Amino acid sequence: MNYFSTNFTLGILGGGQLGKMMLYETRKWDIKTHVLDPSIEAPCRIAADYFEQGDLMDFETVYSFGKKVDILTFEIEGVNIEALEKLEEEGIKVYPSAATLRNIQDKGIQKQFYKKHQIPTSAFNVFENKDSLNHAIFQKEISFPFVWKSCTGGYDGKGVSIIRAAEDLIPLADGACIAEDLVPFKNELAVIVARNPLGEVKTYPVVEMEFHPEANQVEYVICPARIDENVAHKAREIASKVSEAFKHVGLLAVEMFQTDDDEILVNEVAPRPHNSGHYSIEASYTNQFEQQIRAILDLPLGNTDSKAGGIMVNLVGAQGHTGQVVYKNIEKILAMEGVTPHIYGKKETRPFRKMGHVTIVNKDLDKARKIAEEVKKTIEVITE
Amino acid sequence: MNYFSTNFTLGILGGGQLGKMMLYETRKWDIKTHVLDPSIEAPCRIAADYFEQGDLMDFETVYSFGKKVDILTFEIEGVNIEALEKLEEEGIKVYPSAATLRNIQDKGIQKQFYKKHQIPTSAFNVFENKDSLNHAIFQKEISFPFVWKSCTGGYDGKGVSIIRAAEDLIPLADGACIAEDLVPFKNELAVIVARNPLGEVKTYPVVEMEFHPEANQVEYVICPARIDENVAHKAREIASKVSEAFKHVGLLAVEMFQTDDDEILVNEVAPRPHNSGHYSIEASYTNQFEQQIRAILDLPLGNTDSKAGGIMVNLVGAQGHTGQVVYKNIEKILAMEGVTPHIYGKKETRPFRKMGHVTIVNKDLDKARKIAEEVKKTIEVITE
Repeated sequence: MNYFSTNFTLGILGGGQLGKMMLYETRKWDIKTHVLDPSIEAPCRIAADYFEQGDLMDFETVYSFGKKVDILTFEIEGVNIEALEKLEEEGIKVYPSAATLRNIQDKGIQKQFYKKHQIPTSAFNVFENKDSLNHAIFQKEISFPFVWKSCTGGYDGKGVSIIRAAEDLIPLADGACIAEDLVPFKNELAVIVARNPLGEVKTYPVVEMEFHPEANQVEYVICPARIDENVAHKAREIASKVSEAFKHVGLLAVEMFQTDDDEILVNEVAPRPHNSGHYSIEASYTNQFEQQIRAILDLPLGNTDSKAGGIMVNLVGAQGHTGQVVYKNIEKILAMEGVTPHIYGKKETRPFRKMGHVTIVNKDLDKARKIAEEVKKTIEVITE
Repeated sequence: MNYFSTNFTLGILGGGQLGKMMLYETRKWDIKTHVLDPSIEAPCRIAADYFEQGDLMDFETVYSFGKKVDILTFEIEGVNIEALEKLEEEGIKVYPSAATLRNIQDKGIQKQFYKKHQIPTSAFNVFENKDSLNHAIFQKEISFPFVWKSCTGGYDGKGVSIIRAAEDLIPLADGACIAEDLVPFKNELAVIVARNPLGEVKTYPVVEMEFHPEANQVEYVICPARIDENVAHKAREIASKVSEAFKHVGLLAVEMFQTDDDEILVNEVAPRPHNSGHYSIEASYTNQFEQQIRAILDLPLGNTDSKAGGIMVNLVGAQGHTGQVVYKNIEKILAMEGVTPHIYGKKETRPFRKMGHVTIVNKDLDKARKIAEEVKKTIEVITE
């Protein structure tokens, strides 16, 4: 198959920042793209060869969009799987496949998949709804504290709560959910795995999420993780195993816990390029978006090593600011060494909305970490 | 001035591959762009916020395009300067300025500028037309061999000839021209200089053009150049001086000769991102296109150091092939370490047409050089 400067067409479901960064790569290789997104203001509204506004969860919309492309992928999990299945039956290649997405989209099914495939993960129970969860607590089948997760619709910390006492249950939404053991951990890690249809697999170095000491929010994604080499090796092995178990094609971001006794437990996965891989645009020989294109087009996978240490800081809307965004002091961070801001192109900021990210690269990771702290102190995502 | 996710508009004259790569950076920072190009098939036809088809040499077209933007730049020197002058008078910022472009666009004026500013360059004479050149030869005011250059319209080796005897004069076009001393040189070098309106200047490392031993064509652009440190230092100093003499704003590519006795002579300049800086996309902390945006928007300039050694190979159309392009064996070069092809998006190949380039990055420059040779042997730009 010849993809470069031809009529071959790649379809992308979702036109947000991940799609936007994927389009840098399709443009670099002159690969024709179609993008579907519900918002006419989506970051992918330009740079695709064809942009369509439409509902990603609507069968007919996704199906008729998919019929016009040769290979279909997605940059968000919330898409109509039945349409993907019908497209596959009719010969359209969908990567990752509908079957893989079925095993991931519902967190209850995802956890059961790990259990079935002997992938280490925290102990859990699945409940059909809030009532059955309450009943299990009442029957002392599960006990506080535990981690509650909604089976569907969770994203960026939404749909996840730590339940320490009965009153924490009150605000939870109804619906299918899981209750997981709250495992004490030293580190939250992630590994991005690329796998192509031929079954070639490559893993990126382990990244580490450094949390704010008080706010319990990820502040820095650091590559490579400052952990023991054996633990890093184990994390990459497990991530490969997860990708192979899913027969996943494309990128799979595997989020993991490093427990106090250096066990690795898989927390959850995302079947697409991921926030934890953004550092790769500046730091890696092959960035995650190019790797995604290589994987789904069945091209040889690229080198996942880093050219330099990389740290990523998310740019999220400041509290108390809603409206036309201003990136205050962006010129100050541009004067810092090895600093590259990425602005996603959302015109309106809201508290905690992901508006962009900043990458800091440096051969000396400690130096990068210090500059990252300066970046975080300096830039503000506010309104005028 | 706030450029990010606002209504600020950057205008770009020319929508070829340089403009296309510049748009990766405007997209990364969500800077609104307008692009003007004569071809509806131009690589920038997508990814700009607004694309206009029109003649870059036509006063009215350039003027009315420029009136709709806040800052205007160009990715090709062949634009209507009178329109730029009028736009400047009316308060539109044009970077590089019309005055700078006037000093560069005509090679006779450019050479006289170097002489006036004591910038080392080969000895030369300017002639109004072919007749006056012939007359000077007849009068023995100049002697064979010499380098003939057309004052205007030269590009990619067109408009340049080495004249060794009277019969070499016959095919030359009529028009203003220069006759330069043919200086024996060890190396052809280039330095990219960035300068912002505040006068902040940064130079990139020296790159070296490695020629094919027989074909006398540049085969590899190598960064850093494999030359003595003192010579490299001198080349960067001279390049800075050239940029400052021109009061240039934006990127200036300074092409130079290293003579047999290690003198540096300025050959010519290009007031824009340049083929010799393409390696920077993968190899530098700040790639040349981001640097161009930083410079013309008066933002702090970024680090020009390299993360790794970089080698660039042009992808030009093979002889004997005209028509719908095929990049034969591209999947084979994708399997080589640290190899990134860039496909410009021209559908038709022709002999020697620049269709793309390939960058090879590696911490070990010798290893990169070996891989570059494999790349060159493997990929073919042909028709089916």
